[in-house]
Amino acid sequence: MMEPLYIVKVGGNIIDDAEKLSAFLAAFSSIQGKKILVHGGGKLATKMASSLSIPQQMIDGRRVTDAETLKIVTMVYAGWINKNIVAKLNAMGCVSMGISGADAQTILAHKRKHADIDYGFVGDIDEVHTEAMMALLSKGISMVVATITQDASGQLLNTNADTIAQELAKAMSVHFSTSLVYSFEKKGVLKDVSDEDSVVAQMNASMFKQMKEDQTIFAGMIPKLDNAFAAIEAGVSKVIIGDALELANLIEGKSGTTIR
Amino acid sequence: MMEPLYIVKVGGNIIDDAEKLSAFLAAFSSIQGKKILVHGGGKLATKMASSLSIPQQMIDGRRVTDAETLKIVTMVYAGWINKNIVAKLNAMGCVSMGISGADAQTILAHKRKHADIDYGFVGDIDEVHTEAMMALLSKGISMVVATITQDASGQLLNTNADTIAQELAKAMSVHFSTSLVYSFEKKGVLKDVSDEDSVVAQMNASMFKQMKEDQTIFAGMIPKLDNAFAAIEAGVSKVIIGDALELANLIEGKSGTTIR
Repeated sequence: MMEPLYIVKVGGNIIDDAEKLSAFLAAFSSIQGKKILVHGGGKLATKMASSLSIPQQMIDGRRVTDAETLKIVTMVYAGWINKNIVAKLNAMGCVSMGISGADAQTILAHKRKHADIDYGFVGDIDEVHTEAMMALLSKGISMVVATITQDASGQLLNTNADTIAQELAKAMSVHFSTSLVYSFEKKGVLKDVSDEDSVVAQMNASMFKQMKEDQTIFAGMIPKLDNAFAAIEAGVSKVIIGDALELANLIEGKSGTTIR
Repeated sequence: MMEPLYIVKVGGNIIDDAEKLSAFLAAFSSIQGKKILVHGGGKLATKMASSLSIPQQMIDGRRVTDAETLKIVTMVYAGWINKNIVAKLNAMGCVSMGISGADAQTILAHKRKHADIDYGFVGDIDEVHTEAMMALLSKGISMVVATITQDASGQLLNTNADTIAQELAKAMSVHFSTSLVYSFEKKGVLKDVSDEDSVVAQMNASMFKQMKEDQTIFAGMIPKLDNAFAAIEAGVSKVIIGDALELANLIEGKSGTTIR
């Protein structure tokens, strides 16, 4: 039996709300054993860009990360949000180290190449190096990861938080029985997007295949679930999707959707 | 014989100049063995405050850190500058972890109490915890420390870079033969502030006492030297003061002022 590890990605809506964030961090700090928190930024980066009169360009719902925007997201995600989360967790007795993907070259990425669209300083992940995280986790220190990475030349890059959580979970599965938790403002995977009570409690690959064929699943969840099953195939023990404010219940399987 | 450790504080003038910073980081990455870089912020925080129309209040040459200014220095020091230094060092083959004093509760501080002046969110250091740094240094990972700390309640605090370097050096002296390097834009301790060639190469406590009595030392250096000798008394092997662009020579004792 490998030791358990929890990797929890928290959504931007929680980060933006001081009260919800405190409740979430209290639940995170209560998780027994080894744990990693992955966070993005929420609305603060957009607000900061607006205050600094830096126009934000969106293509197909994705933010284009120009040089000035990269500076803002690095400051906000890896600076203000990361250090506030760390300080709060420490104060709760959950000793934590805040890092970005650049730190100790934990996540090496390359600037996204796209035939038609230049997304700017956006990173796609090449390699995950677990040595620094392993050394800290073994000392009982929890990790808080901001979604900034770097390439081999030392260029910082903005990287998707869901993807970072997934790649960390895959890499850590060599060492731990790893649970990957996507926590956000929804109750879990819903059969009917308009019905919060239609949460699917358990899901496996054959059920997912059947649900896609029958179209008994909300289409918007399908890419997230494709990623979840890819993580399972790569060695992650389980993926849990659900409400960030019910983190303890998610981990105990009493709430949300558990995917194996 | 204890293993050597170098703790290098770099001044803001170097941080502000991309070319000088690159040269400095190349020299830092070439230091053999275990090393910690401590950096403040330079002019970027002031520029950012001005862009965001946040007035900066100075009392006796010290910045008052109100809530908005704390946000800016945390973003700039622990976010943008720290992660850029880390990414550049990694690209040079010097694998580095960037932290603030809050991370892994490395530096615990309290908000400065002053009878007459409220400096705002400024931290005076109470405790240094070396466990996380020790775990990472033992893996061959260098540390890059931004000058943000926290108090026991989870409040982030802005803390003087010279003091952080000194307190880290004192705490690490239990484990290593620690050299503390204050590197900036001056050649070293000058007998005559107007003469860059009047560098005092070696200094000990009795020489310093004599120089103060004879007034053969630039008065502005006296507080820095008082701190240096306090560090030596607390177990630091040597303190070196000199030009950041001559870092290799400083460490070899070929440049700057070496205090024992």
